[in-house]
Amino acid sequence: MIELNHTHDASARSWVVSANAEGSDFPIQNLPYAVFRRAGSPEPFRGGVAIGDQVLDLAALAAGSHVDGLALDAARAAALPTLNDFFALGPLAWQALRHAVFAVLHSDAPAATASDLRPCLVPQAEVEYTVPARIGDYTDFYTSIDHALNITRLMNPDGDVTPNFRWVPTAYHGRVSTIGVSGQRFRRPMGQAMAPGAKAPTYQACARLDYELELGVWIGQGNAQGEPIPLERAEEHIFGICLLNDWSARDIQFWEMAPLGPFLAKNFATTISPWIVTMEALAPYRQAWTRPANDPQPLDYLESTANRAGGALDIRLEVWLESEKARKEKTGPSRLSTTSFKHQYWSVAQMVAHHTVGGCSLNPGDLFGSGTISGPGEGEAGAIIELTRAAQTPVTLANGETRGFLEDGDAVLLRGWCEKPGHARIGFGESRGTVLPARA
Amino acid sequence: MIELNHTHDASARSWVVSANAEGSDFPIQNLPYAVFRRAGSPEPFRGGVAIGDQVLDLAALAAGSHVDGLALDAARAAALPTLNDFFALGPLAWQALRHAVFAVLHSDAPAATASDLRPCLVPQAEVEYTVPARIGDYTDFYTSIDHALNITRLMNPDGDVTPNFRWVPTAYHGRVSTIGVSGQRFRRPMGQAMAPGAKAPTYQACARLDYELELGVWIGQGNAQGEPIPLERAEEHIFGICLLNDWSARDIQFWEMAPLGPFLAKNFATTISPWIVTMEALAPYRQAWTRPANDPQPLDYLESTANRAGGALDIRLEVWLESEKARKEKTGPSRLSTTSFKHQYWSVAQMVAHHTVGGCSLNPGDLFGSGTISGPGEGEAGAIIELTRAAQTPVTLANGETRGFLEDGDAVLLRGWCEKPGHARIGFGESRGTVLPARA
Repeated sequence: MIELNHTHDASARSWVVSANAEGSDFPIQNLPYAVFRRAGSPEPFRGGVAIGDQVLDLAALAAGSHVDGLALDAARAAALPTLNDFFALGPLAWQALRHAVFAVLHSDAPAATASDLRPCLVPQAEVEYTVPARIGDYTDFYTSIDHALNITRLMNPDGDVTPNFRWVPTAYHGRVSTIGVSGQRFRRPMGQAMAPGAKAPTYQACARLDYELELGVWIGQGNAQGEPIPLERAEEHIFGICLLNDWSARDIQFWEMAPLGPFLAKNFATTISPWIVTMEALAPYRQAWTRPANDPQPLDYLESTANRAGGALDIRLEVWLESEKARKEKTGPSRLSTTSFKHQYWSVAQMVAHHTVGGCSLNPGDLFGSGTISGPGEGEAGAIIELTRAAQTPVTLANGETRGFLEDGDAVLLRGWCEKPGHARIGFGESRGTVLPARA
Repeated sequence: MIELNHTHDASARSWVVSANAEGSDFPIQNLPYAVFRRAGSPEPFRGGVAIGDQVLDLAALAAGSHVDGLALDAARAAALPTLNDFFALGPLAWQALRHAVFAVLHSDAPAATASDLRPCLVPQAEVEYTVPARIGDYTDFYTSIDHALNITRLMNPDGDVTPNFRWVPTAYHGRVSTIGVSGQRFRRPMGQAMAPGAKAPTYQACARLDYELELGVWIGQGNAQGEPIPLERAEEHIFGICLLNDWSARDIQFWEMAPLGPFLAKNFATTISPWIVTMEALAPYRQAWTRPANDPQPLDYLESTANRAGGALDIRLEVWLESEKARKEKTGPSRLSTTSFKHQYWSVAQMVAHHTVGGCSLNPGDLFGSGTISGPGEGEAGAIIELTRAAQTPVTLANGETRGFLEDGDAVLLRGWCEKPGHARIGFGESRGTVLPARA
């Protein structure tokens, strides 16, 4: 795992003054990556780094003379329309570029550097983003025990998770083709649903549309088929983390999923945030990874000292819902829940080790979803089916509207950030997706 | 669906004399596509068409003067290292190239044509193949009711398939990164298995390694997210079919798969045949698609006159096993089973319509697995777990060895072909994969 260094110094400031504002998601200690261009322009998409309310254009940076060596190699790779080549360079190159960008954006940088680089900044308000890498495979995990228990107990109040849950970092393969970046708008899916007691399913618009609050884990370096990544080295293969909304059609899901898992219930859309927060930026927010004493302890291939010491990540998360009415009347979104990723039953390193233990190869740009993130408390559930107990106890929005499941026009916003005393607050920005009416 | 035309004429012959041999997989009526190069050479991979024991090099064809118009556009696209651009051109281009290649390889072609094209032929014995397209997403279906019943009845002799099976063309997302072409060799996977009655799983080499006899369906043209492909137009989106072996670790599978489906049990390797037989070549082998009268009839979006008339494909299939001993002693492989794809409960067109009905987008080069193909009779099972009732009744090989599940060194060969009176026999070639010992 990455050690704390000068780029984590909470007192560091940037000459990009918006980066120093209280509560900014993107201070100089963060420096996350996205792929962007000026909105509506014919410019090529290219990599950028968030600093305050600006994007540092990495193509422009790479064309100048302010970075060299491995950092320049990395900037050139990150200036392409997808970040796959940058991911493939590995942790030394990722760190070299982070440290070089930190240096040139720092308030102590020479005035000439700042004046040279000002033209390389593009206001975030003027850009559009795209999916930041060519995703070879997308895997969705299921690693929140509170989520698994909430779902189980909807059907059986005394139920427990499946016997494998406490042993296996459960996962299934997801759909790459419908992953979109924040701003994604998608039609409510059609599909088969079986009403309780009915003799035949009906073909209809999904009546139980849900979101799932997740984090996305971007794979940096891959591994060869048949060559597992041991837990001790797993984090060298993780580039960073984004927000991810795994939209779910619950009525379609419950009918289709036995025995091979969800399919149409999930593959109509998945929304990710544009910004990828690096593992190095997250280093101050590591916590001990623990396992309740009465629960089974991990098998050897899922056990390491480093994972015990710092496998958990305290990433604060929120889900907000903005109805069409609230948007029209400008009354703002309503917060549905808040939790932290630190409660997750399996760590991101354990996900990598488990995924590859049987010989499966990962490639740069592969994406993992963490699985729905629900915490143990009231109001910490990461899906509306949990919050409303499948619409039995609807939630009330700020403007008095109620929701059992999502309605047409609803936008769901995910937000994430890390903060603690003595360290700079760093944020993930936002993931927003909007439900359009079903196809007529 | 494609009408029969002169390229299906059983009396047609090629000036490539090996194509006219009795029992050839690749007569002039077939003309399947692969991506190849001379084995071990630094040549770029490019598309080719099988004719007898030769490959017609499409890059060489496109560079010459024997095709023009849409067929030339298609040949140029098919001359690339992946066939995605060719797939994206659509059915008119696919047909134009097939008909052009048929004309230039026909025994009635001018002698000058044949002499010009002879240098464009490469012996199949001298080439190596690769995965023929950049696969964006891989979906594995589960559409053989005999397979589903065989598996169910291992655990419950009076059991039936899950209630959704007769309504939903069941599918789940699979892993792209470990799909390899015939000749693939892979390590027996490691993973977690739970012994009956045990209190904790063990981490071990898979002890119940299996194959699954499947067909692979290559998507030609895609669809936009949110714009389903209706059943009536589904076949315009299918380029062709190959053989596919969905290797399966049954002990890992049965422990991990509740509730989200198989994961490590499948993602260590999938082997496909290099040759893609086009839907046009398969046209003579269509049959009526039927549904037993006492079974539910399909919902409207899975029902069409054309699918009823010709949705089934009579593709004969065989599984052979060659043990390491048989290979060393040159006693040859043993046939384990034989069946036909015509028994499948859902057609390939229904797979496409179902996959997209909720809004999921398909892209050129996406791959579907049919799911294990088992027929209703004895010896028609497409997986060894069915044939041996999970090793309770081992099969005996030609050299006297027995198998409950696969052993290290075993090679599994899939073969497929179509034949009937009055029509040319067309074949799929072979898919071969070999089990290596687990990683120490």
